[in-house]
Amino acid sequence: MTISRSICLGFLALITAGTLLLMLPFSHSDGHWGILSTALFTATSAVCVTGLSVVDVGQYYSGLGQFFIALMAQVGGLGYMTATTFLLLLLGRKFRLRDKLAMHQSLDTSGISGMQHLVKSIIGMTLMLEILGILLLLPVFEPDYGLGQGLWMATFHSINAFNNAGFGLLSNSFMDYATDPLLNVAITLMIILGGIGYQVLLELYLWGRDRVSQKPIRFTFSLHFKIVTSTTLFLLFLGTLSFFLTEFNNPATLGTLTVGEKLIAAWFQSVTTRTAGFNTVDLSQMTTTSLFLTIAFMFVGASPGSTGGGLKTTTLRVLVMCTRAVLQGKEEVLCYQRKIPMSLILKAIGGVMASLLTVIVATILMSLAAPTQEFLPVLFEVVSAFATVGLSIGITAQANLTTQLILVLVMYVGRVGVLMLMSALLGDPAPSTLHYPEEDLLVG
Amino acid sequence: MTISRSICLGFLALITAGTLLLMLPFSHSDGHWGILSTALFTATSAVCVTGLSVVDVGQYYSGLGQFFIALMAQVGGLGYMTATTFLLLLLGRKFRLRDKLAMHQSLDTSGISGMQHLVKSIIGMTLMLEILGILLLLPVFEPDYGLGQGLWMATFHSINAFNNAGFGLLSNSFMDYATDPLLNVAITLMIILGGIGYQVLLELYLWGRDRVSQKPIRFTFSLHFKIVTSTTLFLLFLGTLSFFLTEFNNPATLGTLTVGEKLIAAWFQSVTTRTAGFNTVDLSQMTTTSLFLTIAFMFVGASPGSTGGGLKTTTLRVLVMCTRAVLQGKEEVLCYQRKIPMSLILKAIGGVMASLLTVIVATILMSLAAPTQEFLPVLFEVVSAFATVGLSIGITAQANLTTQLILVLVMYVGRVGVLMLMSALLGDPAPSTLHYPEEDLLVG
Ligand SMILES: [K+]
Ligand SMILES: [K+]
Repeated sequence: MTISRSICLGFLALITAGTLLLMLPFSHSDGHWGILSTALFTATSAVCVTGLSVVDVGQYYSGLGQFFIALMAQVGGLGYMTATTFLLLLLGRKFRLRDKLAMHQSLDTSGISGMQHLVKSIIGMTLMLEILGILLLLPVFEPDYGLGQGLWMATFHSINAFNNAGFGLLSNSFMDYATDPLLNVAITLMIILGGIGYQVLLELYLWGRDRVSQKPIRFTFSLHFKIVTSTTLFLLFLGTLSFFLTEFNNPATLGTLTVGEKLIAAWFQSVTTRTAGFNTVDLSQMTTTSLFLTIAFMFVGASPGSTGGGLKTTTLRVLVMCTRAVLQGKEEVLCYQRKIPMSLILKAIGGVMASLLTVIVATILMSLAAPTQEFLPVLFEVVSAFATVGLSIGITAQANLTTQLILVLVMYVGRVGVLMLMSALLGDPAPSTLHYPEEDLLVG
Repeated sequence: MTISRSICLGFLALITAGTLLLMLPFSHSDGHWGILSTALFTATSAVCVTGLSVVDVGQYYSGLGQFFIALMAQVGGLGYMTATTFLLLLLGRKFRLRDKLAMHQSLDTSGISGMQHLVKSIIGMTLMLEILGILLLLPVFEPDYGLGQGLWMATFHSINAFNNAGFGLLSNSFMDYATDPLLNVAITLMIILGGIGYQVLLELYLWGRDRVSQKPIRFTFSLHFKIVTSTTLFLLFLGTLSFFLTEFNNPATLGTLTVGEKLIAAWFQSVTTRTAGFNTVDLSQMTTTSLFLTIAFMFVGASPGSTGGGLKTTTLRVLVMCTRAVLQGKEEVLCYQRKIPMSLILKAIGGVMASLLTVIVATILMSLAAPTQEFLPVLFEVVSAFATVGLSIGITAQANLTTQLILVLVMYVGRVGVLMLMSALLGDPAPSTLHYPEEDLLVG
């Protein structure tokens, strides 16, 4: 079985198991058996770390049900992070010598031991960061909910923030905490760390270790690190500025806040689009401009080898660099004085084309299944499901059975990736030995 | 001065001249001086062969004003077709021997005589096809308008159809002729021929000549020809099928027609999105699904070296072929057993990124300038202006001064091309002799 098939089937198996668990009576606060479509939707949303929900999770599910959801988000997020990191590192990727040495356990031995080491490293890092999140969130929830429930709230939301899962126990996400500095710091930190990818975290760790031990030769960051961090920072900054400006005077969102609070709320909104799914302002009250910006940011999404979804920051950057090369009249695509290989450029094209096609087809199906809905909310929900973001402006809550099933499919396709799903369906390609002559045509 | 600067400034000069002509009192049916913003909008729309209009052209402008508009569309369409064909053929494009022989006058002598020959050939072909259009349209309009006015109607609409300009003298475009077979044949034929590009028409002519003279060696079509014709036919078929199915039961559009008439109207709608701008059904009454489909088809647009706009069929096809290569695990992008060169792939990426950026930025500006408008109509109008389509569901007619100016800018940028405009602004790039090492990163 190919790796892509294993990943696609693995997620299907997790969703099936999760659906069964969420069907059970003791998963529900009212003790009844679950509704199949609801259980399927929630399980898919949890395993794919999307966070869209057709029910109020804090009310509808019992403590055990909530625990199952957090577990699914944890397994789904960790599994995806591990699988994609392993796959990306394994499949003929070259790293510079220093990186190879640093990661030789997980990279150069492609067998079981390499995988085991990588899994251990990812799990250890995840747990450490999630515990940090719990410690930061406990002082936020403890005063309002007491130690026991406060601890559960902190744990549930830390897991959901780091895994970019976006499930919340409060019916209005974090709108009551929109101006709480500690919650904003804790949640956005978890979201960013969870969405930036294992390799970046590892390099940060190695860099920090070298700094502490004052080694004479400083750790040099890889091209991947530079691209991910610079693109992520740029998008976060651009998002904060955009939401700050467009919602500045909107009384239903930022209008009534002080300038400092406006900045905090705009920052949270910018972070959550990189594909967390929590919100501190009422999304349905945002301006058309902000909703459209949110759609664009959600579509780009997080970084590869992370728990987040979307097109990925590196894909966007590669395409931007290609565009720059065209404008400069170059045939080499450069970034930080390194040449981007052809295979990556093709993969970036494949990623964006497959993603656009999925979003377009899903939007058409949704608009056929719910013809009375306006266009913007439908597109918003489709992109949110596709990029495993989980933000909603109402379509999911009003979804009928057909639109629920479409969203379930979009969440699944968005998670495993269109290209991975298609290569899983197609099987391993047979290498071709034929070569064809080059011929030009008119483009543009 | 670089070629791209000449083209950008040339269009600016045409628009300026057209604005002045449309300001004059005898251009208006009421004999008054024109309004600057209206004259600018109409002139830009005519020179850029868009066809969006803030006034009813048939009522607002005098016969002379209408003649100016047709002239601007003719000069704009011809100029664009000639300039882009010349540019694309000139800039280091390689063709197979047979093509070179066939076109050696216009291709291999890159000086004045080559340009003159190309211009003559394009003008001759345009005039011949437009006369064909007039002859086909005259029997449609003559019974309703008499010979004199009927001939003017046939001429105006033939010029506007071939140049994909989309201006009409009737206030509801061709809605009164939705089921007229001859009008549908004439207009869609003109639109397709005008939008398919000079090289395809030339190869069709050469192929036909060889067939007639029964030469032993048959003319073989270029890769460009195969890609343009197959992609165009596929998009036309897909569009017809989509509109037929989604509007089948809509009483305000196709619902009241017979099945045959439904097919004709769906076909017309499919053709007009490739970027003509006429319509035979009430666009504002179409379903959300159809409007979204129209936006997608408009964005792709026509073929290069033609009078049409948009991303271009070849660009889409190159990107689709790249995606197929990724799925097949290949690093060579093949199409009809020919390898697509790297420079074209980069150009396709640049084209799609620049186009998406323009549409996104323009949509954000429009939604800021008209915050009460719904999202879908705004996106529709922006894409229509960008791809020089000219279809409208009402925003242009309601436009205020700010949104009018945004649309003027979008029409201009959409016509000269984002990449051409940026390279005109940047100037010719200095060739770099530095080479950088290749480094991998994680994508997807
Ligand atoms: K999420
Ligand atoms: K047009």
